[in-house]
Amino acid sequence: MNSKIKILGFGGSLREGSFNKALLYAAKEAVPENAEFEIFDKIGTFPLFNQKNENAMPLEVLEFKEKIKNSDAIVISTPEYNYSVPGYLKNAIDWASRPYGNNSFEDKPVAIMSASGGMLGGARAQYHLRQIFVFLNMHPINKPEVLVANAQEKIKDGIISDEKTKEQINKLLLALVEWTKSIKKL
Amino acid sequence: MNSKIKILGFGGSLREGSFNKALLYAAKEAVPENAEFEIFDKIGTFPLFNQKNENAMPLEVLEFKEKIKNSDAIVISTPEYNYSVPGYLKNAIDWASRPYGNNSFEDKPVAIMSASGGMLGGARAQYHLRQIFVFLNMHPINKPEVLVANAQEKIKDGIISDEKTKEQINKLLLALVEWTKSIKKL
Amino acid sequence: MNSKIKILGFGGSLREGSFNKALLYAAKEAVPENAEFEIFDKIGTFPLFNQKNENAMPLEVLEFKEKIKNSDAIVISTPEYNYSVPGYLKNAIDWASRPYGNNSFEDKPVAIMSASGGMLGGARAQYHLRQIFVFLNMHPINKPEVLVANAQEKIKDGIISDEKTKEQINKLLLALVEWTKSIKKL
Amino acid sequence: MNSKIKILGFGGSLREGSFNKALLYAAKEAVPENAEFEIFDKIGTFPLFNQKNENAMPLEVLEFKEKIKNSDAIVISTPEYNYSVPGYLKNAIDWASRPYGNNSFEDKPVAIMSASGGMLGGARAQYHLRQIFVFLNMHPINKPEVLVANAQEKIKDGIISDEKTKEQINKLLLALVEWTKSIKKL
Repeated sequence: MNSKIKILGFGGSLREGSFNKALLYAAKEAVPENAEFEIFDKIGTFPLFNQKNENAMPLEVLEFKEKIKNSDAIVISTPEYNYSVPGYLKNAIDWASRPYGNNSFEDKPVAIMSASGGMLGGARAQYHLRQIFVFLNMHPINKPEVLVANAQEKIKDGIISDEKTKEQINKLLLALVEWTKSIKKL
Repeated sequence: MNSKIKILGFGGSLREGSFNKALLYAAKEAVPENAEFEIFDKIGTFPLFNQKNENAMPLEVLEFKEKIKNSDAIVISTPEYNYSVPGYLKNAIDWASRPYGNNSFEDKPVAIMSASGGMLGGARAQYHLRQIFVFLNMHPINKPEVLVANAQEKIKDGIISDEKTKEQINKLLLALVEWTKSIKKL
Repeated sequence: MNSKIKILGFGGSLREGSFNKALLYAAKEAVPENAEFEIFDKIGTFPLFNQKNENAMPLEVLEFKEKIKNSDAIVISTPEYNYSVPGYLKNAIDWASRPYGNNSFEDKPVAIMSASGGMLGGARAQYHLRQIFVFLNMHPINKPEVLVANAQEKIKDGIISDEKTKEQINKLLLALVEWTKSIKKL
Repeated sequence: MNSKIKILGFGGSLREGSFNKALLYAAKEAVPENAEFEIFDKIGTFPLFNQKNENAMPLEVLEFKEKIKNSDAIVISTPEYNYSVPGYLKNAIDWASRPYGNNSFEDKPVAIMSASGGMLGGARAQYHLRQIFVFLNMHPINKPEVLVANAQEKIKDGIISDEKTKEQINKLLLALVEWTKSIKKL
């Protein structure tokens, strides 16, 4: 097959200069030749999920769901808020998992990146995400774990200056593409 | 002291007929004589947290923070979405924990209730909340764990018909009041 | 290929009449035609892991490591002790993951079953196991989740009387075999 | 009251030169005037827990249970094995929690320390321990979190050379003593 592996990336905080958006842009730059990387950048515009509206979803949520379904693999980049996944990110996941029987993430391979100002680099948010993936029936890669600690020293004005971080992102994308080819029998 | 222990309750999904709002109302009914229970019911109106706005918070968030600070103890009632805390609830917690140095939950005793349609009664959301409490420096009670499984059989039109569930909520409130008196030396 | 998928099962408490050993025996019975199922039943004889001895492991540990390496997929059946994985099971996993660079579980597909006397069926142990799999670089299936609650009503004298439990085990094995074929490109 | 707060510490790997035993010895040194610190150092001699023997426990387990019951507070120091609590430590906890109705840890205040060679300092083991504490009905302090990353640079021959680590241990003990006095109304 000639067609490229389609990767959809999202996440990153809603503030300007977000460390985790910088990771997404670096991932887009680092995508291997046999893949393409699109960033969905509108989860900050979603309303709070209300089951009442799940059969009449906002257009931007429908677009999100469509892009997820059309992708072969997912990359989520996330800060850690209060030792877990940020509310705005979980809200986007909650929307895309609904309505019942129409979970857009079903059977998708996935990789996680996180950056934080502390020494753990967002690890606690990553393990909560992994438990969420069980219900969503997603298939996360295990290695490498991209955990960017002390992010303020490695990312400035949206640009990653740390070579090791860039290398980790490259490895993550290569591993995700291989994993996707493997489980999708491509 | 004559003054009553002030408990603030929040959570419950944003849809009408929410099982978890029914738990909150039952808790309000069940509050012991030496305590009072107020429900904060506006977290569904909060915007998504954006750090950019944390020094100019919306009025309803400021009201939430003020009510938390003025309370002696917290009760959170939550459904489980995708094996974790719902986005809208985490979003409310993220707001109230900010800005840095002004975490409204600091040092508060807390109890959790959850109801779900499945057999686990929201347990997975509860353990994620407990990890969140570590960062927030909250002090959760351990027992009883109010996990209302198969909630559709026990709660109808916002009314709890199951006696055992009501009894569990009574025990939770008594335990929370005792715990609060203990750690606050009241 | 003619060769069968080799599945290795272990776990179950050390007492006689263990619910979780009953699950393993049921899995052995339920194994699909294109697979075979062996039970390793000696983890209760392992000493406590001591890094000092990891280069001179006891024979039964070496046998365990060898059987894991020769398998295509793993099934772990476990009770829940104190809301987590039992010490004896974690001890067996710790041995088989060592020494550094010689993790026998590397890249293995895996499925989990658990039975408990309570209403959660061992779920909390399962999610801790899933976090352990990240480091071990194992690939767990997500569905079905075999969580046998109120096990004393469903398993007697090592025999499963509950049809739904048996059906769940059948589905687990079918899903594990498909998953194994998929990621191993068999 | 004149009597001192009695703290019991245990954990640390079974190998010589254990980083986590070094933390325990440092805690013993750092104990405040109004408290005393005893180390229980025999969990490595416990057999694997078998429910069959829980009514005829080995002497060293009975001694462990007695020392826990006689203490006012607990300190656990632990490495992280495979992203969770080591089997030998969980095994000791499993013994001391039994038999049913005779959980030695019931209602005890507790603090955790961990050291590891990696960048997370054992955090993943700590959060699993915290979930275990819910069932055990223990009351962990939240801060400080003593997470000694890159332990090989900070601890040599059982001696902690890193001042910040020592300071963290001091703070942990002070916080544990205050917490114990608070919830025990001492």
